[in-house]
Amino acid sequence: MSTISIDGDRLLGRIRTLGGIGRDEAGRLTRLAATDADKLGRDAFVAWSRDAGLDVRIDRIGNLFAIWGGGQGHAPLMIGSHIDTVIDAGMFDGCYGVLAGLEVVQTLAETGVSPDRPIVVAAFTNEEGVRFSPDMMGSAVFAGSHPLEAALASEGTDGALLGAELRRIGYAGDEEPGFLKPGAYLELHIEQGPILEHEGVGIGAVDSLQGISWQRIAIVGEANHAGTTPMTMRRDAGHAAARVIDFLRRSALERAPRLVATVGSLGLWPNAINVVPGEAVLTVDMRSPDADILAAAEARFAAFLQEMRSEGGFSITQTRLVRTEPVQFDGRIVRLVETAAAGRGLTVRRMTSGAGHDAQMLAPIAPTAMIFVPSAGGISHNPREHTADDPLIAGANVLLDVVRDLIAALPSGGGA
Amino acid sequence: MSTISIDGDRLLGRIRTLGGIGRDEAGRLTRLAATDADKLGRDAFVAWSRDAGLDVRIDRIGNLFAIWGGGQGHAPLMIGSHIDTVIDAGMFDGCYGVLAGLEVVQTLAETGVSPDRPIVVAAFTNEEGVRFSPDMMGSAVFAGSHPLEAALASEGTDGALLGAELRRIGYAGDEEPGFLKPGAYLELHIEQGPILEHEGVGIGAVDSLQGISWQRIAIVGEANHAGTTPMTMRRDAGHAAARVIDFLRRSALERAPRLVATVGSLGLWPNAINVVPGEAVLTVDMRSPDADILAAAEARFAAFLQEMRSEGGFSITQTRLVRTEPVQFDGRIVRLVETAAAGRGLTVRRMTSGAGHDAQMLAPIAPTAMIFVPSAGGISHNPREHTADDPLIAGANVLLDVVRDLIAALPSGGGA
Repeated sequence: MSTISIDGDRLLGRIRTLGGIGRDEAGRLTRLAATDADKLGRDAFVAWSRDAGLDVRIDRIGNLFAIWGGGQGHAPLMIGSHIDTVIDAGMFDGCYGVLAGLEVVQTLAETGVSPDRPIVVAAFTNEEGVRFSPDMMGSAVFAGSHPLEAALASEGTDGALLGAELRRIGYAGDEEPGFLKPGAYLELHIEQGPILEHEGVGIGAVDSLQGISWQRIAIVGEANHAGTTPMTMRRDAGHAAARVIDFLRRSALERAPRLVATVGSLGLWPNAINVVPGEAVLTVDMRSPDADILAAAEARFAAFLQEMRSEGGFSITQTRLVRTEPVQFDGRIVRLVETAAAGRGLTVRRMTSGAGHDAQMLAPIAPTAMIFVPSAGGISHNPREHTADDPLIAGANVLLDVVRDLIAALPSGGGA
Repeated sequence: MSTISIDGDRLLGRIRTLGGIGRDEAGRLTRLAATDADKLGRDAFVAWSRDAGLDVRIDRIGNLFAIWGGGQGHAPLMIGSHIDTVIDAGMFDGCYGVLAGLEVVQTLAETGVSPDRPIVVAAFTNEEGVRFSPDMMGSAVFAGSHPLEAALASEGTDGALLGAELRRIGYAGDEEPGFLKPGAYLELHIEQGPILEHEGVGIGAVDSLQGISWQRIAIVGEANHAGTTPMTMRRDAGHAAARVIDFLRRSALERAPRLVATVGSLGLWPNAINVVPGEAVLTVDMRSPDADILAAAEARFAAFLQEMRSEGGFSITQTRLVRTEPVQFDGRIVRLVETAAAGRGLTVRRMTSGAGHDAQMLAPIAPTAMIFVPSAGGISHNPREHTADDPLIAGANVLLDVVRDLIAALPSGGGA
């Protein structure tokens, strides 16, 4: 195949234009799902897609599909991500993948490529899950793993219902979710972590997405006077929490890099300088790309808590908050990503995604993989989120090459 | 000496009457210094003292002195404590010592004892330090270790000035603080800790009061995504805080029971389940009755923090909040307490006071000791604060016997 490349200026221009929509007086970017700001962002994506000759369809959960080419009844190739943001966000998370998808299709169209199947650029509703729960909602409804009616009835943090809000902003479509059956799914995304930058690698060929175990641990000991209670008579819930924090760190280090564990949140009661803490509540976030490692880590942690209980002195309650299994992406597409990156002269490494993405919802219904570009400082969900122009363009060109390879490689058949 | 005993019913009745003054609609007891409730409590103490034939004098910081007997110019024997309370308090902290002092004097007067020196029952202003800072203010001003003018100018948590409040409630006296020069000082108090109850001992002969070191430690690492940041690249301030907690506990256990250390308060930032903590702020409370042990513990802790700094990854700030030296009480009076307890058929042990008391302010200017009675469950500063009637009466009788022994033993001379 001859080398063609995307129009970097057009891509960067659109990223910045979309990144300018939904800013407040102080310049903070916030485009929560199904808000007025989200409507304006959607309007921009729809206008660019139609200008590029794509047919825009909208399903009942508000997912946008910009479709190029009817093909010959073969299952479409889907490129997707999301354009909703967190509060005080960066401009790259999600938007980069959607706009790079559009750029790839537009580039293919302009160079006269004529694939044998539709190529679809998808922008899924409410990936961030900030206003409405759960996150990755649009892709989950599309893939059939979350019920449409429950999603539409979801109540936002402001009390509004998602279904009504989608109608209000004009993005409650009439396509049934799942009306398209993708033959493959690709998602290009900023890493949102430090690994690529730290190792000086240009492209991440993402072969898996970590399973997540979130728990809340409540430890009850006894609050006592810090001056008059002998060390040997204390039931110090703060020290018990410290033991949990240290256990989890050692446990994860033993399995690094296949396991991470974090105590991000901790509260003591009564939280006074001169009182031995009587209660501690902490959260545990454990993730692994390997289902067995994650399950074993949970079991080891439960055994540790049981051991603490059996020492006496503490009542410990363990509450499961979130549990998702790891997702393995499609090995063939991951190899295509590696080949495409190398073909562009870029360094590449296989990696797992530490964060959740729409791709994990698509993986059960279509061969799926993701492409990562470096995040400066590993920072995301923050105005300091940044990736330089060159790696943004490089990532989009890798996406372009993988799309071309997939068009050539995908089997015939399927489709809407 | 013949055995005489205090009037238990009278003592218990006054404790309950005073404990009923300053309760809100819900029954919570709060008599903060120089409030209307404090005025009513003072009025009750003054009335009981005058009814018993004592001469009540008030100094410029509002300390109350109920004086019995003119003596022959010998330095007075002082029995004291305080009648202000914390918020939602028990009825025994401080009040027990003041009312037992009054009961002892009244008993001596009624049995026709005629000491060669005045016996003074003191109720010091603002021991608790809840409304006005610092705590133990009245006794510190009396003993000359805190300036009168600064104390009068102290601004309360409600914005009121102590001097004005004392005038408003009619308890700004005209005696200069220190107008009495005690020949000895005794303070009877509930333990506010669990040791006596735990060991089944009736009386604590308090030979020292712990020095206190309060510090605030701020640890700055780096906040990062809990899913995408490898364990080896983290600068987890929460884990650093856990190491501090564990170090302090091990450090205190090595020196137990001569050292206690507590991390009572801890806050993480941003304190989110899926973010590696970037900052931790915690408080450290270390106490010892031994000045060398306390100083060595501070030095070991500072070295530990320095070691953590030298590992890299964390910026650690150490702020000193409070530092008091341990106080050694008078060995001769402590032995009198032991003898008196044994004479009443009570078990007795020497112990240190973990909490601060007016006695520590008096110790530099007069031979001083304290007597403790057990606290149920070690609980204090709480409505559940409790000591049963029998040990309350027993403690007052020990105080009575020590007072009689001291009258006989104190050298002549001194006095106002």
